[in-house]
Amino acid sequence: MNKEELKAMLEEVAGGRLSPDEAVMRIKLQPYEDLGFAKIDTHRGVRQGANEVIYGAGKTKEQIEKIVSHILSNDAKSVLITRMSAEAAEYLSQSAKLFYDGLSKIGIAGERPKNAEAGNIVIATGGTSDIPVAEEAALTAEYYGSRVTRLYDVGVAGIHRLMNNAELLANARVVIAVAGMEGALASVVGGMVDCPVIAVPTSVGYGASFNGLSALLSMLNSCASGVSVVNIDNGFGAGYLANMINKM
Amino acid sequence: MNKEELKAMLEEVAGGRLSPDEAVMRIKLQPYEDLGFAKIDTHRGVRQGANEVIYGAGKTKEQIEKIVSHILSNDAKSVLITRMSAEAAEYLSQSAKLFYDGLSKIGIAGERPKNAEAGNIVIATGGTSDIPVAEEAALTAEYYGSRVTRLYDVGVAGIHRLMNNAELLANARVVIAVAGMEGALASVVGGMVDCPVIAVPTSVGYGASFNGLSALLSMLNSCASGVSVVNIDNGFGAGYLANMINKM
Amino acid sequence: MNKEELKAMLEEVAGGRLSPDEAVMRIKLQPYEDLGFAKIDTHRGVRQGANEVIYGAGKTKEQIEKIVSHILSNDAKSVLITRMSAEAAEYLSQSAKLFYDGLSKIGIAGERPKNAEAGNIVIATGGTSDIPVAEEAALTAEYYGSRVTRLYDVGVAGIHRLMNNAELLANARVVIAVAGMEGALASVVGGMVDCPVIAVPTSVGYGASFNGLSALLSMLNSCASGVSVVNIDNGFGAGYLANMINKM
Amino acid sequence: MNKEELKAMLEEVAGGRLSPDEAVMRIKLQPYEDLGFAKIDTHRGVRQGANEVIYGAGKTKEQIEKIVSHILSNDAKSVLITRMSAEAAEYLSQSAKLFYDGLSKIGIAGERPKNAEAGNIVIATGGTSDIPVAEEAALTAEYYGSRVTRLYDVGVAGIHRLMNNAELLANARVVIAVAGMEGALASVVGGMVDCPVIAVPTSVGYGASFNGLSALLSMLNSCASGVSVVNIDNGFGAGYLANMINKM
Amino acid sequence: MNKEELKAMLEEVAGGRLSPDEAVMRIKLQPYEDLGFAKIDTHRGVRQGANEVIYGAGKTKEQIEKIVSHILSNDAKSVLITRMSAEAAEYLSQSAKLFYDGLSKIGIAGERPKNAEAGNIVIATGGTSDIPVAEEAALTAEYYGSRVTRLYDVGVAGIHRLMNNAELLANARVVIAVAGMEGALASVVGGMVDCPVIAVPTSVGYGASFNGLSALLSMLNSCASGVSVVNIDNGFGAGYLANMINKM
Amino acid sequence: MNKEELKAMLEEVAGGRLSPDEAVMRIKLQPYEDLGFAKIDTHRGVRQGANEVIYGAGKTKEQIEKIVSHILSNDAKSVLITRMSAEAAEYLSQSAKLFYDGLSKIGIAGERPKNAEAGNIVIATGGTSDIPVAEEAALTAEYYGSRVTRLYDVGVAGIHRLMNNAELLANARVVIAVAGMEGALASVVGGMVDCPVIAVPTSVGYGASFNGLSALLSMLNSCASGVSVVNIDNGFGAGYLANMINKM
Amino acid sequence: MNKEELKAMLEEVAGGRLSPDEAVMRIKLQPYEDLGFAKIDTHRGVRQGANEVIYGAGKTKEQIEKIVSHILSNDAKSVLITRMSAEAAEYLSQSAKLFYDGLSKIGIAGERPKNAEAGNIVIATGGTSDIPVAEEAALTAEYYGSRVTRLYDVGVAGIHRLMNNAELLANARVVIAVAGMEGALASVVGGMVDCPVIAVPTSVGYGASFNGLSALLSMLNSCASGVSVVNIDNGFGAGYLANMINKM
Amino acid sequence: MNKEELKAMLEEVAGGRLSPDEAVMRIKLQPYEDLGFAKIDTHRGVRQGANEVIYGAGKTKEQIEKIVSHILSNDAKSVLITRMSAEAAEYLSQSAKLFYDGLSKIGIAGERPKNAEAGNIVIATGGTSDIPVAEEAALTAEYYGSRVTRLYDVGVAGIHRLMNNAELLANARVVIAVAGMEGALASVVGGMVDCPVIAVPTSVGYGASFNGLSALLSMLNSCASGVSVVNIDNGFGAGYLANMINKM
Repeated sequence: MNKEELKAMLEEVAGGRLSPDEAVMRIKLQPYEDLGFAKIDTHRGVRQGANEVIYGAGKTKEQIEKIVSHILSNDAKSVLITRMSAEAAEYLSQSAKLFYDGLSKIGIAGERPKNAEAGNIVIATGGTSDIPVAEEAALTAEYYGSRVTRLYDVGVAGIHRLMNNAELLANARVVIAVAGMEGALASVVGGMVDCPVIAVPTSVGYGASFNGLSALLSMLNSCASGVSVVNIDNGFGAGYLANMINKM
Repeated sequence: MNKEELKAMLEEVAGGRLSPDEAVMRIKLQPYEDLGFAKIDTHRGVRQGANEVIYGAGKTKEQIEKIVSHILSNDAKSVLITRMSAEAAEYLSQSAKLFYDGLSKIGIAGERPKNAEAGNIVIATGGTSDIPVAEEAALTAEYYGSRVTRLYDVGVAGIHRLMNNAELLANARVVIAVAGMEGALASVVGGMVDCPVIAVPTSVGYGASFNGLSALLSMLNSCASGVSVVNIDNGFGAGYLANMINKM
Repeated sequence: MNKEELKAMLEEVAGGRLSPDEAVMRIKLQPYEDLGFAKIDTHRGVRQGANEVIYGAGKTKEQIEKIVSHILSNDAKSVLITRMSAEAAEYLSQSAKLFYDGLSKIGIAGERPKNAEAGNIVIATGGTSDIPVAEEAALTAEYYGSRVTRLYDVGVAGIHRLMNNAELLANARVVIAVAGMEGALASVVGGMVDCPVIAVPTSVGYGASFNGLSALLSMLNSCASGVSVVNIDNGFGAGYLANMINKM
Repeated sequence: MNKEELKAMLEEVAGGRLSPDEAVMRIKLQPYEDLGFAKIDTHRGVRQGANEVIYGAGKTKEQIEKIVSHILSNDAKSVLITRMSAEAAEYLSQSAKLFYDGLSKIGIAGERPKNAEAGNIVIATGGTSDIPVAEEAALTAEYYGSRVTRLYDVGVAGIHRLMNNAELLANARVVIAVAGMEGALASVVGGMVDCPVIAVPTSVGYGASFNGLSALLSMLNSCASGVSVVNIDNGFGAGYLANMINKM
Repeated sequence: MNKEELKAMLEEVAGGRLSPDEAVMRIKLQPYEDLGFAKIDTHRGVRQGANEVIYGAGKTKEQIEKIVSHILSNDAKSVLITRMSAEAAEYLSQSAKLFYDGLSKIGIAGERPKNAEAGNIVIATGGTSDIPVAEEAALTAEYYGSRVTRLYDVGVAGIHRLMNNAELLANARVVIAVAGMEGALASVVGGMVDCPVIAVPTSVGYGASFNGLSALLSMLNSCASGVSVVNIDNGFGAGYLANMINKM
Repeated sequence: MNKEELKAMLEEVAGGRLSPDEAVMRIKLQPYEDLGFAKIDTHRGVRQGANEVIYGAGKTKEQIEKIVSHILSNDAKSVLITRMSAEAAEYLSQSAKLFYDGLSKIGIAGERPKNAEAGNIVIATGGTSDIPVAEEAALTAEYYGSRVTRLYDVGVAGIHRLMNNAELLANARVVIAVAGMEGALASVVGGMVDCPVIAVPTSVGYGASFNGLSALLSMLNSCASGVSVVNIDNGFGAGYLANMINKM
Repeated sequence: MNKEELKAMLEEVAGGRLSPDEAVMRIKLQPYEDLGFAKIDTHRGVRQGANEVIYGAGKTKEQIEKIVSHILSNDAKSVLITRMSAEAAEYLSQSAKLFYDGLSKIGIAGERPKNAEAGNIVIATGGTSDIPVAEEAALTAEYYGSRVTRLYDVGVAGIHRLMNNAELLANARVVIAVAGMEGALASVVGGMVDCPVIAVPTSVGYGASFNGLSALLSMLNSCASGVSVVNIDNGFGAGYLANMINKM
Repeated sequence: MNKEELKAMLEEVAGGRLSPDEAVMRIKLQPYEDLGFAKIDTHRGVRQGANEVIYGAGKTKEQIEKIVSHILSNDAKSVLITRMSAEAAEYLSQSAKLFYDGLSKIGIAGERPKNAEAGNIVIATGGTSDIPVAEEAALTAEYYGSRVTRLYDVGVAGIHRLMNNAELLANARVVIAVAGMEGALASVVGGMVDCPVIAVPTSVGYGASFNGLSALLSMLNSCASGVSVVNIDNGFGAGYLANMINKM
């Protein structure tokens, strides 16, 4: 409620068209619903331009089912669930229409949005082991309506694989660079394009990769301009942000 | 040189209008100039949509002067220099027209671009000690043409300072959140707006802030969507990326 | 035994009312009982104002049962057991009256104290995954007699959920802020109230949360005054301390 | 402004006794004043029960002077400044009445509060090198009105020094344990008293003390109940919190 | 394609012996084949002097089988697979001729190269637990044609075991030093020989070995000249590099 | 072989009483036997005053059995095996006389030495969870002939438990202090005795104990003199060293 | 005061030969003197078998002078001061007889003890840069009466330097191994001798030595038996402990 | 001295042509000379194929001068000194012929070897700030006789700068890749060449580069084959090893 809306409402009160009690209600009205163990943010579609998302890790299948059913019964057509176990997906599919991708552990309950056609997000990975994280990003961006081009297994140790796809990269509005190990993909891609690059370090690797720390530090220290970084393995965060930028 | 341009050029060769030697030259032509200690990227304006930037740290004042003079003599109207010491600025100002801001250590040699009016980038800081980094971001974004709104000293421990500026934040196309210590500003701002938030951890703090590590980790773990992170104290990187997104 | 008591006792010796041997006994009397593998602190109720607590992790079910039975047979009405596995609870319930909460893994053997009504401790969590730690704190504080108000899932990325409960927070004598990921909840709450805030970082998160390190550092670097921190996932410690402060 | 106050105000609007514009003003009224580089929180005395404090590190002497003069000219009798350099103290003393302690770098501008007599806070240190941090805590707590008992150089490697002061500790309402190196003081003290213990790790030590990390981890892992921890060298935070608890 | 080859080809175009379209094809021809989830680098034998290697970790047995079958059907006589599970080996052996070593998890599909006789690589280990990593190095180097001498369990805590094999070491063209725990083997060997030493830290150890970090740091800080280091447990990398140097 | 022995032997050669070949043999004679995967140090009893010990972790039960049988068939009466799994113990007991302690995972194959009576080593633990590590130390020291006094569960948070055993500590020739969590036991004990204290950090704890790092750092930073530290959970190392010192 | 002494004293009270007040005095008598900023432990010579030592770092020259003068006026013949700056030494020498070694920063005020002849401590260093720490150990051990043999610059990268001194090492009762960088000296020496080895990591090195962390971890993970570790650069601690063991 | 040489010598003894005393001398002869504070390894030229090198850091100018003069007076024509301060160079040049390069801090005392012409080592840097480390490597390799090609400022964020020099890289026998920040240069170069790549992480960068840690981890995790790593900023080590490999 901005200043003008507030003044307008107060003038309704002054004009007797709105009782003080109702005005209190409106101002204080909680923009979320309380399920006890979770407070669902039903106004988020308005406030942030995107529907509520359920972070599935650390929630029981019953909790997920309860939240999903609550959201779908409140005019939402669909809800995105990340990091949902196959078991929870199995359980949820008994009571709701569900699309589920076992690789990325992404689920979409309700009506899955149609083909995404807005703009162009290119998602590149260093290796094949980074694909689950890349798919989490891709399915998220597509869910929100962005067109996604996948460019997998183009790690910098075989730089010609990347160079041969320079045009494909040049056509991107946003690039998501997903890589583990030394995470150099973000820097090289960052130097090849003139659009924002969202770097996603992955926990792929062993030894001194320290579960993604090596890739994370590399990406933060990228000497290419236009690169920013999200958390290790955070495909959802990258896909969400890429969609946001893609649609500007 | 994309596929079509390449084919066009090769057809000139086939038609005898271009000699093989000249074609070799064009394909191999180095898109940078070599000063011995540095290779200046003169085509970057074309390729990345932004002029060459000089990272001043670790360069002698003589090196900076040499690179600046080379760039300005190649049709560039101005050049941005980051992390330039007051001493180097003093030295450079003897041979070039120079704007220099001692707080952010940003210099602009040549013609400083006129008032930046594109879009709206809001730059918020947690405290007053974060201002130098914020100014590095602000001057960078303005240099590239973006309008910047400064919102300083709105750390989350006095949340009303931030809430009272909710409208100002709501009008941003991009927000840069600059904070040291616990770095919580990025998460709170990230939940208040529906545009991309670029988080800049700063090395402000003491003890267990470990020179910015605490703020860095906080920002990477932000539970708000739409937040990405750049290196500790990397005001330039944030400003450059924010301008890129702001102009999409 | 303070100076005055010591002098009084020695005067009894001087007066012949107490033999030297008995005096030695009294001075040296061990204020704990020795079970071989554990030394139970039976005087703690006097010395620290709270009964013995059993830290269940790393103890076998038989060891827990032995210690519980020993304590209950020494005039204690009940004993609190933390981090007790469901299996140990099952085993213990065969020989003792037991309340057990599977979520927080808290057990109370013997007579569970009646409704706790002293003061008001508000326990807030950032998300639903933090609830097990929060419940460990809540059940501990209630066991010692404090009234607890639960305020779950009010993470800072949806700051209105927290602002709407400002009054509830304002009525607290102590607040416990439980959060993983970026742990910003402690700072925001710390700025909203004028009572002590005990921050509990949790290991909830992934990637660069490094099992709670991110939240721990955030909370230690809180720029809000009145905030102190306990170990990662240490709900018991927070509940114990909150009760202590609440009753002052 | 709570629900009742809001309703009362809105009834004034309904009754025509207050114009909508004035009501907007009241609701939106900024509870801080804006100096450009800093937003001073003038309502904090009301909201948090304590006056504004100036964190001196990272501020120029001119900035400190400006903030102090602004605060003192707004009905505040005094203002506390932490981590103020001797040079800034020298500068400030030219325009304001100033108490300054060079050891702890604490300054009090304006009227220094009279002898603090409330309750009893015992501040113990492991060694003599921890005294500057301890004094920061002591002067802070005294500034807010608490009585402080100093117990310095009682590190655990000479446990009799601590045991001989057991009674002194037993009389405390709150204990602040300040120690570097292995930081064991907090655990030992925590086991001797039945009041809250605030542990302050210091950066005193060398080698594997890693600037206070060793003491910090020790204190977080304390097996004594009732212990919580603040940031490394954060004497102010400990003193502020101790005063808050002491006065409950 | 180097400068001369490029000019030659362009002269064919100028001479009409090659169409522009075909020239485009040749220049752009992708030196890898695309399986969708992986891009196989079929020219690597030419470019890097070694055949494609499959990093088995993080790939399903079906993916491994698919890549192997593709490579073997493209004129390659064999392919090396590292970190292949026994289960994947079982699966692969149904469709391809396979040598598999369960200790090092190395597989060779197709025709295993004959006895390796080139030069002499000595592979030393600190203890028996380092043997799996050493064998990964040994089998890799042998696969590429190098002769390997194994010298296992010669850790520095029994320095005579190493001294008694001084001649054996003196005859090496390259030494691979494989050690966990304190990793001192690399330094001692480095001081005994005048050939390159490749140090491989292993994750063998416990407590403060921190999964190989201790050995890694030791080896990087070796005060012996001629020592370089690969990733923790990276036997393949060491064997590959040793073979490369051995054959110079 | 020292200088005098060498000269003596060479004089035998000069005198014709020893052939050059035999002299070569003697000088080069390998003081270990080679089982292929392990080099057993049969002269260690002479050189280091203690028999070979088998570090059981990372060895298969067959390897352990082979080494044990080899050692016992070479005049050794017994052999100590550390970190041996119950499964390996079961297997070994089929072919050798075996004492096995499941708590500490210590095994003694062959004739277990009689009651140890030399000197006095006191082994103290902070809690009951530290007992397995303490027993590894105790059984090792007893194996080599030292008398051991166990003092378990005397953590510093209940300092009276430790003070009441001051005499017992005062009678020690060496103390081993075993503790996890904050590891303060080493410092307090170090200040109470005037004999060497060997500190063993354990991985007991959770959260910010970081698997023993907290206790390790505490112990390294101990402000008590006479304290040195071994690796996390290294009961064997502490027991071995304590016995060595105890017998001086 | 042990049980028997206590009983004896109490019998004096019972017999009227000692007043209760005097008995209180005796029991409570503080075994240290209080200088305000420091509590000097005057009974330490009795309790720990060694005189008070002053840790000079972090103390002003005036504080050092005050403590020294107090100790020397209480029957102590001398006092050891570690980490004393040249400036403090200059100041102290004006009021007390002082031996000062600028390399190790060790000072001895009062009568320096005569030639130390007890036992034999060998102190070995890896390089010349480790000598200051080694001298801190040497002068400390000599101060307490131990004979010290110096063996400097025998790092493992030139293992023959160490092997050629095997006899010298064999004659030691205790060895102190001082090394930075990879810290391998401790392991190699540990395998060559059958006496206790005290390892001192130093902060000598650069890059990944991380100020001594590399050497510290190496030494903690030593696979040689009989090795224990003190803090980085802690020459005093090693010298003190070595003397204690040497004299057993 | 190998087995055959030893037998030959012993036969001289048996034949009376060599006295036992002389034989002892020969076997025991110390292959270094002892300056008290340093043991100079005069046989290293024979044993390791390279002359003694002086690591200048942490040595006084007088120590350096003494070692240099000793070495030069023992038939060595020159000696390499690394990390020598300008001040020490000034001092040394008074008594010896000295080449000194202020950028890399490399000095060569005595006769500087003539133009190096063996093989071809390419040294590439990511940026201009990495040049001092690169020059340390270059001058070292040239000192030992290798030809060096410098390729500076070819960081991966402008990948065309590297691609345009592909031929130059293809002609290398060894490549040294020197880079700070994200250190991706090693991986990209590693994928472009089929010769050994020695990666040198530098401490160039800020924030999360953590003084070279980021580049170090990147290089250790390189997914390119044939890459190994030396310590941060260790240009000497890389140059020494590269020369060794280059000459094979």
